[in-house]
Amino acid sequence: MAQPAERSGMSAPPGRLTGGVSGGATALWRPWMERALQLAALGCGRTSPNPLVGCVVLDAEGRLVGEGFHARAGTAHAEVGALAQAGQRARGGTAVVTLEPCCHHGRTPPCTEALIDAGISRVVVAMGDPNPLVGGGGLARLRQAGLEVIEGVATAEAQELNRAFVHRIRHGRPLGILKWAMGADGRTALGNGASQWISGQQARDWVHGLRASCDAVIVGGGTLRADDPLLTSRGRRDPEPLRVVLSRSLDLPADARLWQSATAPTLVAHGFGAPARRRFQLDQRGVERLVLETCEPLALLERLAARGCNQVLWECGPDLAAAALAQGCVQQVAAVIAPKLMGGTPARTPLGDLGFTSMEQVPAWQATPPRGLGPDLLWQLKAPQN
Amino acid sequence: MAQPAERSGMSAPPGRLTGGVSGGATALWRPWMERALQLAALGCGRTSPNPLVGCVVLDAEGRLVGEGFHARAGTAHAEVGALAQAGQRARGGTAVVTLEPCCHHGRTPPCTEALIDAGISRVVVAMGDPNPLVGGGGLARLRQAGLEVIEGVATAEAQELNRAFVHRIRHGRPLGILKWAMGADGRTALGNGASQWISGQQARDWVHGLRASCDAVIVGGGTLRADDPLLTSRGRRDPEPLRVVLSRSLDLPADARLWQSATAPTLVAHGFGAPARRRFQLDQRGVERLVLETCEPLALLERLAARGCNQVLWECGPDLAAAALAQGCVQQVAAVIAPKLMGGTPARTPLGDLGFTSMEQVPAWQATPPRGLGPDLLWQLKAPQN
Repeated sequence: MAQPAERSGMSAPPGRLTGGVSGGATALWRPWMERALQLAALGCGRTSPNPLVGCVVLDAEGRLVGEGFHARAGTAHAEVGALAQAGQRARGGTAVVTLEPCCHHGRTPPCTEALIDAGISRVVVAMGDPNPLVGGGGLARLRQAGLEVIEGVATAEAQELNRAFVHRIRHGRPLGILKWAMGADGRTALGNGASQWISGQQARDWVHGLRASCDAVIVGGGTLRADDPLLTSRGRRDPEPLRVVLSRSLDLPADARLWQSATAPTLVAHGFGAPARRRFQLDQRGVERLVLETCEPLALLERLAARGCNQVLWECGPDLAAAALAQGCVQQVAAVIAPKLMGGTPARTPLGDLGFTSMEQVPAWQATPPRGLGPDLLWQLKAPQN
Repeated sequence: MAQPAERSGMSAPPGRLTGGVSGGATALWRPWMERALQLAALGCGRTSPNPLVGCVVLDAEGRLVGEGFHARAGTAHAEVGALAQAGQRARGGTAVVTLEPCCHHGRTPPCTEALIDAGISRVVVAMGDPNPLVGGGGLARLRQAGLEVIEGVATAEAQELNRAFVHRIRHGRPLGILKWAMGADGRTALGNGASQWISGQQARDWVHGLRASCDAVIVGGGTLRADDPLLTSRGRRDPEPLRVVLSRSLDLPADARLWQSATAPTLVAHGFGAPARRRFQLDQRGVERLVLETCEPLALLERLAARGCNQVLWECGPDLAAAALAQGCVQQVAAVIAPKLMGGTPARTPLGDLGFTSMEQVPAWQATPPRGLGPDLLWQLKAPQN
């Protein structure tokens, strides 16, 4: 359970929040919603297929009496944890929750009923649940039971926090992040293929953290053959993200660190055309296989969404990266740029052909401010339409 | 002449600077030296082959009585301007000057004699003159004449300001800056060669300013054929920097904006092997030619140094850029990175082959903090050994 807000230096909101306060003053609730968002973020990388949710419960006098967050799919929802902490003090109080409470029976009972049963008289939410199983039904149920419902507090922040979940619900596939490390001249390898290490330790540590926020990490066969990567978060996520190899030919090394499933789970995705002998070899090694109708990024992501992945990381070579981009499977790019001039006319670059023939066709992505990672630079871009 | 420091909000240094102050207290002089460095920078891009120099004259009571800077080769040196402003008030005073005063007759008389004749009793300098014609002789002459000389005030800042001049004096060639604009995936053109515009207006404006700080801008024949560039500072420097084309074959367009010498001077450098017919065509167009013993970057820079260039800008394609790097003709890189994914396996990248075969061989350059230029990013790197 999260630490009480008082101990973490959180100040009370400006007004005294009794039952008589006007519900329209959403600004009054913002500090509590920000705390609920902090709580929600504690579950980052662990809740899929569920969203990140945090909840704060205040008693009838506006005093903090409970906090909770959703820590992992299958465990208690944020509201339930916060209500349990509050106990009888929740009666006549307010629940501040980052997402519309669920009203359906999933792996746990509906949170709407828990709030009503606890005697909560007001619920403040940041955003509605995009899940069609909820879709406003949670708020309607609360209102029907006579609770005051306040919406629209810190909505933008809440949507950003659950960007991946919302993306999967809306589009039926996980949010995709494409990451690469390159020299300042745009090279991801030397002419002979050497690429370890382009970036420094701090940047590589940051990438481990990025993996910890993802449900799966995807490479192609070429990256597996060239780099024999480990693709784990180095223990920052438990379980480690699913390591996925998308390979048309299944021409994969007999020995690879990815085959050691004690480290982390590995899945090899391929099409119907993959040679039977190679399928058999993988089965012999105990590697899980996934047969796709078309051996393409989009088909893979749809299957990964069905397995509950909200967010995936593409750490692949230029051709697979270009295919993923072309199929709308990349919503964000994380480019790590090292202060090195690598050169090499035949050397690898981040992306294969995207089919542009004039600069007017090339869209500008939304850049975030660059950030230093030791000697390296991190520049993150968000897709123009997303 | 520069605006008096009082009007520009400059505060007096912490101590009262009379003749009795200990010369060892270099920190006392730093604020005045910083003002002298500001004055020196006003000549940026205009003084070659001379260095940038600024001078402040204080009277015997430590009051500011004169300011000057070197504005252009052939015109008065900084000390002369500041002394003229001070007049009789210089007598018994202090001259704070960014570079050791000259003691030789060049296009103007030696500044040491001007300081002595004006009755200056103390000279504070930031750095010695690397020019072997001066090389400590200026300071020796001042001491011999009975003046107090204080050295080592803001030396690092002064050396940075005159980095290009010092480089030319030490190495016999101008400091080279290599600039390119690329997408976030390291592409400098689309697969079909289209490259206008990768960066936005703010970045292009910044490049015009960069050109204004350079004595020459160099491209190869390929850039001339592909882009028909203008290569001017858009009037920010007068005269415009020399536009240089380094071309082995002289296979250059009959019509090019570079041939319009009313806009800015243009020089075409080539080797002995260039076809006579094409040489003749250039002569007919009135374009100045320079015959190099070897048609290589280093040979070109030696000739440009002899023409008084302290700093040059490489705005060339990948092969010439790689050759310039390999021959030690690049001390700084200015990479403009646009938030665009351009893609394209056959597309152009900033650098050709540099011959590296393992990442251990690839040196890390010294990166400066990245800077936003509108939507684009500017990342400047300095060569590891320089």
